[in-house]
Amino acid sequence: MRISQLSQRTGVPTATIKYYLREGLLPPGRPTAATQAQYDETHVRRLRLIRALAEAGHLSLAAIQRILRAVDDEATDAHRTLGTAHHALGPHVEVPADDREWLAARADVDAFLDDLGWRVSAHAPARDGLAQAVLALRRLGVDSSWEDLRRYADAARPLAEHELARVARAEGREEMIRVAVASSVLYEPVLLALRRLAQEHESALRFRENSTT
Amino acid sequence: MRISQLSQRTGVPTATIKYYLREGLLPPGRPTAATQAQYDETHVRRLRLIRALAEAGHLSLAAIQRILRAVDDEATDAHRTLGTAHHALGPHVEVPADDREWLAARADVDAFLDDLGWRVSAHAPARDGLAQAVLALRRLGVDSSWEDLRRYADAARPLAEHELARVARAEGREEMIRVAVASSVLYEPVLLALRRLAQEHESALRFRENSTT
Repeated sequence: MRISQLSQRTGVPTATIKYYLREGLLPPGRPTAATQAQYDETHVRRLRLIRALAEAGHLSLAAIQRILRAVDDEATDAHRTLGTAHHALGPHVEVPADDREWLAARADVDAFLDDLGWRVSAHAPARDGLAQAVLALRRLGVDSSWEDLRRYADAARPLAEHELARVARAEGREEMIRVAVASSVLYEPVLLALRRLAQEHESALRFRENSTT
Repeated sequence: MRISQLSQRTGVPTATIKYYLREGLLPPGRPTAATQAQYDETHVRRLRLIRALAEAGHLSLAAIQRILRAVDDEATDAHRTLGTAHHALGPHVEVPADDREWLAARADVDAFLDDLGWRVSAHAPARDGLAQAVLALRRLGVDSSWEDLRRYADAARPLAEHELARVARAEGREEMIRVAVASSVLYEPVLLALRRLAQEHESALRFRENSTT
């Protein structure tokens, strides 16, 4: 197909496709004339993945390139490729240097994850994300016992199971990463909105004085 | 106590306390001299609430004032007071005018919530938040069936129950709102970080080729 058709199939503007070609994110098409080339399904799949990484994940070109290299490297297994994508997504937390409260929160998070028995890399950025959240709770004097955190872990676990089952159903490594990134990022606001709505519902059940209005 | 002690007790700087006094968010103390006043536990509680709303909720002065009015109005029941706080927290979504896809997504969200049987105000901003998230999923061609959304609702429900139980244990309306806002906002990054960590753990269980590394 021509570049215009590739654009229609993927929803990515022609100018953006040309930019990805120049930056080497997308392999060149098969040349058919001095200024024309033919593209195929491999380009469609690659563009869909790039679009998900850029639009859903808001990832930089450098981060996208790193993920594509992992996708293309057959020696990198699926878990490591997913890890590269997951870690690029963040959360990106500025880790304060020499802050004792921060270090204590981070150590507690590591111990908590050990206790859960979760197999998570020591470099997972979400460890810092959790430490930052725990620190914010402590600073505002809100209870954040392990028992309390465990409820959130218990809620997250079946979601992750469902999400990774969705990833496993995807065909091919590119589609797998696309689904993983889209699930991770796009279902986040779904979960947050539903939590707010559930809170309002529970508040109505508990506190509404006139149950008919 | 003096204003300096009030600052120590609450962690709010003296200059900020003076600003809240000028803006009428904090009632004046009992004057003891031309330039001095005494403050009591009511001021401590009010300042802690304002701090949670400003620091955790990132709410504007106008939004904080609206919530404090609901707290002070004895005729407003607990559910409505919580609703005022919850709705101020957002999510704040720019609703596109005349976008048919948006309207369809919003109508689907309303039907989905009806189907769940949740008692949620028609003006809850999280309805728009959920519609926006559903629309983003559709535009990137990711499955977002009701069955799929229901899993996230099922995960959110027990968390909300736990959170509202925490709110119900708080003593007095001010403390209740403080706990509700802090839970809503500060446990959000806890949940998101744990979901990312759970995804990595599930990925390890499913895809890791060499289980000893």
